[in-house]
Amino acid sequence: MKNRVYSTVGKPTPNIDGIYRATGSAKYATDIVLPKMLWGKILRSPHAHARILNIDTSKARKVKGVKAIITGVDTPKRKYGGLPMFPETVDEYGLALKKVRYIGDEIAAVAAIDEDTAQEAINLIKVEYEILPAVFDPVEAMMDQAPQIHNVSKNIAFEGEMEFGNVEKGFQESDYVREDEFATSMLSHCALEPHASAASVSPSGKITVWSSTQSPYFVQKDLSQLLDVSIDRIRVIKTYVGGAFGGKLEALAPEFCCSLLAMKTQKPVKIAYSREEEFISTRHRHPTIIRLKAGVKNDGTIVAKDCQAIMDGGAYNSFGPGIFGRIGGQISLVYRVPNMRFKGYLVYTNKPVCGAMRGVTNFQARFADDSQMDMIARDLGLDPIDIRLKNARQPGETTPHGWKVTSCGLTECIKKIWQKRNSIRKPDENTYKKVGIGVSCWGYYSGSKVGHGLSGVFLKMNENGTAQLLTGAADIGQGLTTVLCQIAAEELGVSLDKVQMSPVDTDSAPIDLGSWLSRATYFMGNAVIEAAKDAKQQVFEVASKILEADTADLISKDNVIYDSTNPEKSVPIEDAIRNSIFKRGRAILGKGYFDADLGVSNLKTGVGNAAPAYAFGAVLAEVEANVRTGQVAVRQITSATDCGFPINPLTASGQIEGAIVMGIGGALFEELKVKDGRVLNPSFMDYKVPRATDAPKQETYFIETLDPGGPFGAKGISEGAAIPVAPAIANAICDALGKRFTSLPITPEQIVKALRGT
Amino acid sequence: MKNRVYSTVGKPTPNIDGIYRATGSAKYATDIVLPKMLWGKILRSPHAHARILNIDTSKARKVKGVKAIITGVDTPKRKYGGLPMFPETVDEYGLALKKVRYIGDEIAAVAAIDEDTAQEAINLIKVEYEILPAVFDPVEAMMDQAPQIHNVSKNIAFEGEMEFGNVEKGFQESDYVREDEFATSMLSHCALEPHASAASVSPSGKITVWSSTQSPYFVQKDLSQLLDVSIDRIRVIKTYVGGAFGGKLEALAPEFCCSLLAMKTQKPVKIAYSREEEFISTRHRHPTIIRLKAGVKNDGTIVAKDCQAIMDGGAYNSFGPGIFGRIGGQISLVYRVPNMRFKGYLVYTNKPVCGAMRGVTNFQARFADDSQMDMIARDLGLDPIDIRLKNARQPGETTPHGWKVTSCGLTECIKKIWQKRNSIRKPDENTYKKVGIGVSCWGYYSGSKVGHGLSGVFLKMNENGTAQLLTGAADIGQGLTTVLCQIAAEELGVSLDKVQMSPVDTDSAPIDLGSWLSRATYFMGNAVIEAAKDAKQQVFEVASKILEADTADLISKDNVIYDSTNPEKSVPIEDAIRNSIFKRGRAILGKGYFDADLGVSNLKTGVGNAAPAYAFGAVLAEVEANVRTGQVAVRQITSATDCGFPINPLTASGQIEGAIVMGIGGALFEELKVKDGRVLNPSFMDYKVPRATDAPKQETYFIETLDPGGPFGAKGISEGAAIPVAPAIANAICDALGKRFTSLPITPEQIVKALRGT
Repeated sequence: MKNRVYSTVGKPTPNIDGIYRATGSAKYATDIVLPKMLWGKILRSPHAHARILNIDTSKARKVKGVKAIITGVDTPKRKYGGLPMFPETVDEYGLALKKVRYIGDEIAAVAAIDEDTAQEAINLIKVEYEILPAVFDPVEAMMDQAPQIHNVSKNIAFEGEMEFGNVEKGFQESDYVREDEFATSMLSHCALEPHASAASVSPSGKITVWSSTQSPYFVQKDLSQLLDVSIDRIRVIKTYVGGAFGGKLEALAPEFCCSLLAMKTQKPVKIAYSREEEFISTRHRHPTIIRLKAGVKNDGTIVAKDCQAIMDGGAYNSFGPGIFGRIGGQISLVYRVPNMRFKGYLVYTNKPVCGAMRGVTNFQARFADDSQMDMIARDLGLDPIDIRLKNARQPGETTPHGWKVTSCGLTECIKKIWQKRNSIRKPDENTYKKVGIGVSCWGYYSGSKVGHGLSGVFLKMNENGTAQLLTGAADIGQGLTTVLCQIAAEELGVSLDKVQMSPVDTDSAPIDLGSWLSRATYFMGNAVIEAAKDAKQQVFEVASKILEADTADLISKDNVIYDSTNPEKSVPIEDAIRNSIFKRGRAILGKGYFDADLGVSNLKTGVGNAAPAYAFGAVLAEVEANVRTGQVAVRQITSATDCGFPINPLTASGQIEGAIVMGIGGALFEELKVKDGRVLNPSFMDYKVPRATDAPKQETYFIETLDPGGPFGAKGISEGAAIPVAPAIANAICDALGKRFTSLPITPEQIVKALRGT
Repeated sequence: MKNRVYSTVGKPTPNIDGIYRATGSAKYATDIVLPKMLWGKILRSPHAHARILNIDTSKARKVKGVKAIITGVDTPKRKYGGLPMFPETVDEYGLALKKVRYIGDEIAAVAAIDEDTAQEAINLIKVEYEILPAVFDPVEAMMDQAPQIHNVSKNIAFEGEMEFGNVEKGFQESDYVREDEFATSMLSHCALEPHASAASVSPSGKITVWSSTQSPYFVQKDLSQLLDVSIDRIRVIKTYVGGAFGGKLEALAPEFCCSLLAMKTQKPVKIAYSREEEFISTRHRHPTIIRLKAGVKNDGTIVAKDCQAIMDGGAYNSFGPGIFGRIGGQISLVYRVPNMRFKGYLVYTNKPVCGAMRGVTNFQARFADDSQMDMIARDLGLDPIDIRLKNARQPGETTPHGWKVTSCGLTECIKKIWQKRNSIRKPDENTYKKVGIGVSCWGYYSGSKVGHGLSGVFLKMNENGTAQLLTGAADIGQGLTTVLCQIAAEELGVSLDKVQMSPVDTDSAPIDLGSWLSRATYFMGNAVIEAAKDAKQQVFEVASKILEADTADLISKDNVIYDSTNPEKSVPIEDAIRNSIFKRGRAILGKGYFDADLGVSNLKTGVGNAAPAYAFGAVLAEVEANVRTGQVAVRQITSATDCGFPINPLTASGQIEGAIVMGIGGALFEELKVKDGRVLNPSFMDYKVPRATDAPKQETYFIETLDPGGPFGAKGISEGAAIPVAPAIANAICDALGKRFTSLPITPEQIVKALRGT
């Protein structure tokens, strides 16, 4: 595979659909306008934990223009979220029944002729509550006397434990052992487009839902479950998506409520969230406490690790159980460890719900692990790069969790960023601005399975030599459309302008699970290759007759088919297709699908191969810390990424750069502050995300490893670089100030306090 | 095939999409509303033939709200219509350039903020003409001194001649020879939904066109040609269609002008025709003069026929050259004739354009042939049934035109209707109301090819055992969606409620030519079977592992797969699919296509097999003619139809009944009256279509022949029964009154004149 020359993949390519976004003509869910459409609004719980005694909608119903009001009893009373194979984890109703479990929990929804009328009706709904004691801290929640949020003991939603090798023996054999506790905060995705959805119902009862989603098929499945309507009666159309980052995987209240309101009113209904609703409801990143104990030899070789984690899930499970068990797996993925133990709890609290967010659980795990690696190196007087190189995961290995590493360029990534050390490191600017550098590594899934991991593709070729892809591919701004068109173009041997992708619609797209866990390029890309090969074979069969050549000898490139044994023999692909259609009555129709063969994965323990391939990377952060104000500026981030093969280096770089800025937010600024269950900062005024002025200079390098299973060797790229930024910055701050911070975000207050020793 | 028991096909089934039409929720093209949409209006020629000297749009452009004005020079100046392999027949610009050729010819179009503003601007466009001599009669048009409409000699757009056997010798060997001339009128389709289209253009230049069309792919091709934009940059979405009957096959001015106006304005544009525009522009049925000479033996056996035809094409070719040559073929299809000659001309006149209409050219041909058969029977004292039975086409025969008749139930059809003769025939009611009966037969294509004849299908199966069809199938009210879902359900072995079809959109549908020449059930049905077999095979492969059975032994029925060697072994299809998806990572994706292998067809002569199968039928009409007023009431029509196998007898009957009422219109009422090139009756006030009170009692019978190539033995059905009604009524009128009418429509005036001998 190494020296193959490509025409389309691997070339920096502007996003095909960029012009739509740039010119404002891209339709987002909130842009959907349908005749006679109603507006929907949602009533939320003002209490963190309460029994619903009565809901009186009578006054609200009298508001002129109100067309329907739904509460929990009007729904099919079915639950979703969690893991179907663990039914007790499936815990959330579309609208609360009997109890509310966090401030923001959805209680009722109104459809009315306009937004103001809907809000007026919402304000008039009277709910009688019996307020229940609430719990907000996951450790307190696990105590015997804690209020019970769901019908599970000690509020433990999910738990798991694994051991590989002999960890205690490992610690005994270690020269040095240390144990630390790390804590991360609740983070919000902050996609610039808030959640929005519209739904309409046909006279035969078929529901069409427009959704700003990362996974049309997940939305279909969730709605099927919540509405008690079979999947084939729910059509999900993905609109343009203005950022998602894991927050738009499920059907949330907008999808559910506008669908049910549309069913009740027989009119289209739209619900678009305010920024405040984004912050107080939707999903968030799990605040996680990780107690990590590591034993190493004097030369830094890791002997054993013991990881204990408490993940604060908030009021409902969402994807928590699906991602929880892999905390330990993510720790044992990056650095080799012969003895590994993990024990963890996913715990309910009366706080907003946590779910999937870019780099799920790995963000937390790597903050702990890569901070501690630095602490160990410092303690032992080792170079932070050397200790990482010594333990770096190597290709062909299987981790203690049974994760099979196919390709791995971690060592090369570490070396690459370290080359930059000297050029980066600058002297302190003055006495109160201290400069430090820090490194961190990461490894991450290229997709995974949820029941299955299928991506399917239909591909049709037109008589003018162009190709059309039908997929469920959720381009959420990351450039997936362009990447898949590049892959199809390369495999077909046509130029990129000959390939386009249809709008994503579950009524025409083959099955596909969407964009999450950095799966899309790998899974969908492989499916596109299959479909393109299928179509190409059909074209080659015709071309072989035209050229009087053996099909096996044909190659296609730049829109022409050549006989590789006789380059003088060639036929334009367009001509071959026209011949097929007009002379032979044969349509060129391709299909393909891909799923990964991973064996059984234990979601409680993280044991069992999680992904068909793993991407790796390393970052080097240079920070400047102001010892007077405690403010930290990230001057530069140098990143080296092994994503196998960057199909589109332009958007791959863009993803890395964006992920790094997001990582800076989590490291230094962001925290959804929840007090007594109430979000204190539900706006961009108070919840601080990085701005352009906070973005550092970046140098971005790719290490090509050409994964044997990836499309053209590619692996996932969209999440990884968000993961190592916080530990790299924490390490750099420690380098600058000599102070170690073990909880995120590392705010000026934390720093000033630490420097003052208070 | 004979005794197979079906679950779904062959069962009377209400149209799946009937509820959408009945509840008013079906979206027709004129219902399309897009943000910032403009209205388009078209300026038409007031002259039948004129040179355009100048077009002054300056005043029109000053009207507030006018966004764009286009004339011929603003278009890419490319032509369409006719037959690409005969470039001289491709004769029509999107907007007239230099010359106009009929009253109604499109000259300019305006896009404005509303309909009134657009019309105001249209009214202000000043066109300077040099009026040219015009010609309205096709026979005059062929004379040397006639004005030349296009750059062709004697205004002959297309001509052809063929002879099979020795016709002159045949006449010599005949006992009886007669020669007659028949004439038919210009008819309008009168679809209740006028033509409408909307278009929008994306920032990247991709054009999306919503069209009330019978053939999204034809519209795409036409627009590609006229706009000089490649087909992959044109997306055609078929809306619900409120009747088409051949009149909505092409991109007409609405599609072209709204696309070009959308390109110019970068805003969506809609154009919806008025009823008047329907009548003065669009397309019509060719008025045709047929001179038919037949030689028979005394017992009625046909020995030779000589057919000469002059088809009045109006100002442009449209589909004329594509259908013209088959007039003779349609005459030689129904009754066996050992010696056959055809010579014909398609002629330009300065009249509205004629194109395709239900039963193309066969309507005219059968009026001549089946009227003359009756005249011959009458002359020779033969029973009109006997002479038909004696000459009726038989299965397995090849006609003089090389048309290969696979299945043919014509004889059984004739016998079936004749059984009804006695029960139908009633005595004259009184002295001035005379009752008569008449019969006629027909044969008709089950599709054909235009370059190719492909229909393609994608089929995906969902994890709940349901199937989704992706097709370009143009349901135009005839019930095609239901028929194709029935076929898929039957082939898959699932119940009908498990199958649905996606909205038709060239961006997702595989190639398909649409609904015309009664092709859809045959071509698309076969493609659906292929796709369903493909998917079923994939499901069977999984089921064979579950059941530990041989794939070849499996059958599916009622949503369950059985081992035919051991009926105790079974698995629900849903379970097999879930197993495939969740346990094996295999998506169930089917694809299929169909084209007919017909060999070469000569479109000038009609020689060469025209269709993969031919449907046949016979009708018996009972009329009551008022000798005082000349009014004819059709009391009853009994029809027997060999459509192979009616997939959906309910809609098949509906099609036959509708076709028969349409046939009555053409026989007795309808004529687009054109005087000096001007349509005199462009409204339903003046152009008389049958109303409910004109609809006769009908008895509808099916003769099953199970065509070997048809899906479940089916052949086309949608046009046939419209064809024989006029000759059956003419024969019945002759039976009642003793007067023969050889031109259509047979109006009260004609009858009164004939009875008065004036």
